Amino acid sequence: MWNEEYDVVVIGSGFAGLAAAIEARKLCSSVIVLEKMAVPGGNSTISGGLFAAAGSPLQARDNIADSPELMLADMLAAGRNYNHRELARIVAERSTGTLLWTIDDLGVKYKPELSHLGGHSVPRTYNTANTSGAGIIRPMLVRCREMDIPIRLKTFLAGLIADENGDVEGVEVREDYIFPNRESGVGKRIRAKQAVILATGGFSQDKEFRAVQNPMLTEDIECTNHRGATAESLICALAAGATPVQLSMIQLGPWASRDEEGFGVGSMFSMLAGFPYGILIDLHTGERFVNEQADRKLLVDAMLSSGRESIAIVDEMGVRHASTLEQCLKRGVVRKYNSIEELAVANQVPLAPLQATVASYNTLVEQGRDDRFGKPIPRDLQPLTHPPFFCIRLISKVHHCMGGIRINAKAQVIRMASHQPIGRFYAAGEIVGGVHGASRLGSNAIPECLVFGRIAGANAASETPRSSI
Amino acid sequence: MWNEEYDVVVIGSGFAGLAAAIEARKLCSSVIVLEKMAVPGGNSTISGGLFAAAGSPLQARDNIADSPELMLADMLAAGRNYNHRELARIVAERSTGTLLWTIDDLGVKYKPELSHLGGHSVPRTYNTANTSGAGIIRPMLVRCREMDIPIRLKTFLAGLIADENGDVEGVEVREDYIFPNRESGVGKRIRAKQAVILATGGFSQDKEFRAVQNPMLTEDIECTNHRGATAESLICALAAGATPVQLSMIQLGPWASRDEEGFGVGSMFSMLAGFPYGILIDLHTGERFVNEQADRKLLVDAMLSSGRESIAIVDEMGVRHASTLEQCLKRGVVRKYNSIEELAVANQVPLAPLQATVASYNTLVEQGRDDRFGKPIPRDLQPLTHPPFFCIRLISKVHHCMGGIRINAKAQVIRMASHQPIGRFYAAGEIVGGVHGASRLGSNAIPECLVFGRIAGANAASETPRSSI
Repeated sequence: MWNEEYDVVVIGSGFAGLAAAIEARKLCSSVIVLEKMAVPGGNSTISGGLFAAAGSPLQARDNIADSPELMLADMLAAGRNYNHRELARIVAERSTGTLLWTIDDLGVKYKPELSHLGGHSVPRTYNTANTSGAGIIRPMLVRCREMDIPIRLKTFLAGLIADENGDVEGVEVREDYIFPNRESGVGKRIRAKQAVILATGGFSQDKEFRAVQNPMLTEDIECTNHRGATAESLICALAAGATPVQLSMIQLGPWASRDEEGFGVGSMFSMLAGFPYGILIDLHTGERFVNEQADRKLLVDAMLSSGRESIAIVDEMGVRHASTLEQCLKRGVVRKYNSIEELAVANQVPLAPLQATVASYNTLVEQGRDDRFGKPIPRDLQPLTHPPFFCIRLISKVHHCMGGIRINAKAQVIRMASHQPIGRFYAAGEIVGGVHGASRLGSNAIPECLVFGRIAGANAASETPRSSI
Repeated sequence: MWNEEYDVVVIGSGFAGLAAAIEARKLCSSVIVLEKMAVPGGNSTISGGLFAAAGSPLQARDNIADSPELMLADMLAAGRNYNHRELARIVAERSTGTLLWTIDDLGVKYKPELSHLGGHSVPRTYNTANTSGAGIIRPMLVRCREMDIPIRLKTFLAGLIADENGDVEGVEVREDYIFPNRESGVGKRIRAKQAVILATGGFSQDKEFRAVQNPMLTEDIECTNHRGATAESLICALAAGATPVQLSMIQLGPWASRDEEGFGVGSMFSMLAGFPYGILIDLHTGERFVNEQADRKLLVDAMLSSGRESIAIVDEMGVRHASTLEQCLKRGVVRKYNSIEELAVANQVPLAPLQATVASYNTLVEQGRDDRFGKPIPRDLQPLTHPPFFCIRLISKVHHCMGGIRINAKAQVIRMASHQPIGRFYAAGEIVGGVHGASRLGSNAIPECLVFGRIAGANAASETPRSSI
């Protein structure tokens, strides 16, 4: 009946899956990670490598007062209080401990400066040294190798198998699967003596599934995710009795470039330089229309209303914070202009209103207060007076699924019909719904994935093992 | 294996279920309606009996230009474009035909005047003669009797039974069930030779389930629904493979009274008189803060922000439209005052700001334009200058689930895993998600339930019958 047997079976090889596997392996004798794609790491690898942590060493060095309570308050504000508050609290409380684990235990390298991302009350975002989630995934893969955790690629989750009590006992998979061909591969059944952990991410690339939840997300709307971010494993979990949570809450990224596909290099340019140190302009009016440091939902809603086309502009001073600048310029995603006049002509922005906008923005920066849109004006913010100017053309792309399946504080998947845990079934990462409510703050995904991945791994490996077959 | 067999099995005895049963019975030889509660009619019976129809006879009489296109546009605006547009269009297109069916075929009596409900571009709402959904449910029950459609009460849906192809073949029920005791009653299996139709309504009273989708809806938040509006049948449908749609979109009614439980008599007072012909006031400031005729989401969001306590005030002229006035006064839900001064003292509203608010509102009524909040000012609207004044103390109560399971234009339930219909399985009414998107307009539930109930019934009865056992 079973082809193989492990103590813990982890599905998905991104931040959450690898964290779960590493944590479980410390406590049990065998763990396997199954990954449907031909490469490990999923979206995590291509993410920007941003890690929000409340009360971190860099904050202490820079005298930035922060706390898990403040981070939680920011999460609830962005999430419009739709958050499953207990889960959000756990992410905030364990953010710094988990950051330190990546440094001390995994050897992850971060840049020596914090970033201040939109919707966060204070700068609390670490950047991996290579400006990419791969800066964390690679050391995790090394650790898996050291710990003898096999990562089996091209292995597709076809179904969860329950025992006679309704507890999860294993998985049905297709090995040598070629994404996205559902008929490819060879069927196999893998047993989990202790538990199964689902860490398969979101469904931003599943155009049919996402349109059911949000019909505005039509086929032509682009996406920042890798193409494997589809809904099959979510469907498996729901078929196994998991509770769907807030599936219609799907986030678009307001910072993506119109001039490249996917997440690209432009997204990080906007997040790290364009929005915090520059201005966001309606192409047709030449005016600001929103607090550039608002959370993503607020930005996207403002950008999509009245079908605005927008650009972000930053000057020579602000652009220093853009770690992807060189690649952006090379790929034509960011363009450089010697003057506002030149920029206006090239982008067909009406010049006089744009000049007026820049002038009034510079005034408010000097006054230290944005009465119109409420952008926070930190002390190091400079007026836009230092040419050359850099400009990115923006478009909103589907980025993150806040919705997913319900878990409790132990990362146990909750059965819809009973509100009780499904036995021996855990989940972590973007497949989980509720942590972020209506809108996830930038740089909160990595702590979420690692915090709950580790919780899931530790708890899965603490289950009483079934006897071997 | 089976205890009984019918051509079509309908679950739920509200608007959608009875419409489905009546329509199916015309085309097939046997239909049964199963109802878990001890009385038929569910929420439909206690609803306000409001029926929105585009292009109706009363609109023609009153020279009100309307069209299904305009009604659809109103639905999409209220729904923030989250609507499954094809479904919304069908409701709008068939609204008047279905209204006429209730009049000509069922003999339903309506009042001779239209109401203009919030979020609708024009007056398009019929009121049943008795200001209650019972005005439609009762003639439907009579028709069921005439057509030999049994309505079996206290019969709880415990599960859907699929055949070897995955088509729905019947239901597992508990007869002599005593709500909400899951252990009560006797198990039975009822076979459907043609199809099963799910018309079991929403889950507004399911405090645990609704809090998972929207954690702000804590236990203490009141509800307008009958106590049977719980999630068990939704859970059955999802367990059978149905697609969950927008479950977190749960509507609060902004017009409910703080001084009575449930939907009561105050809700209709606010909807028909207080909001269209009066003003909505923040108790603490004495000021208006929103377009009283906005859709429910906008109103509730405005009322809940900053924890506003609000009252609606209407005068002797406006109160003529309040069909439940007498009961409201008798129950103390609406109170009568000889002057604004008296009203202000009794309700502890600051007098001077309230007087200023009434004066400026009266000015804008005379000018025919509300530049501040955009309330539509119809020609028959009178300034608030005719004492006595009537006042209702408001509180938002959970009212309607926009989310539910996915159907197509034929009312077939769509399987989550395949995006294809589940064989022989239909749904209609509030159990269906997507029609109303993020916010249902008042008086759109009855057309939705009747339109899709009839579609479901006709299509179910057109399925090729299985052979009898």
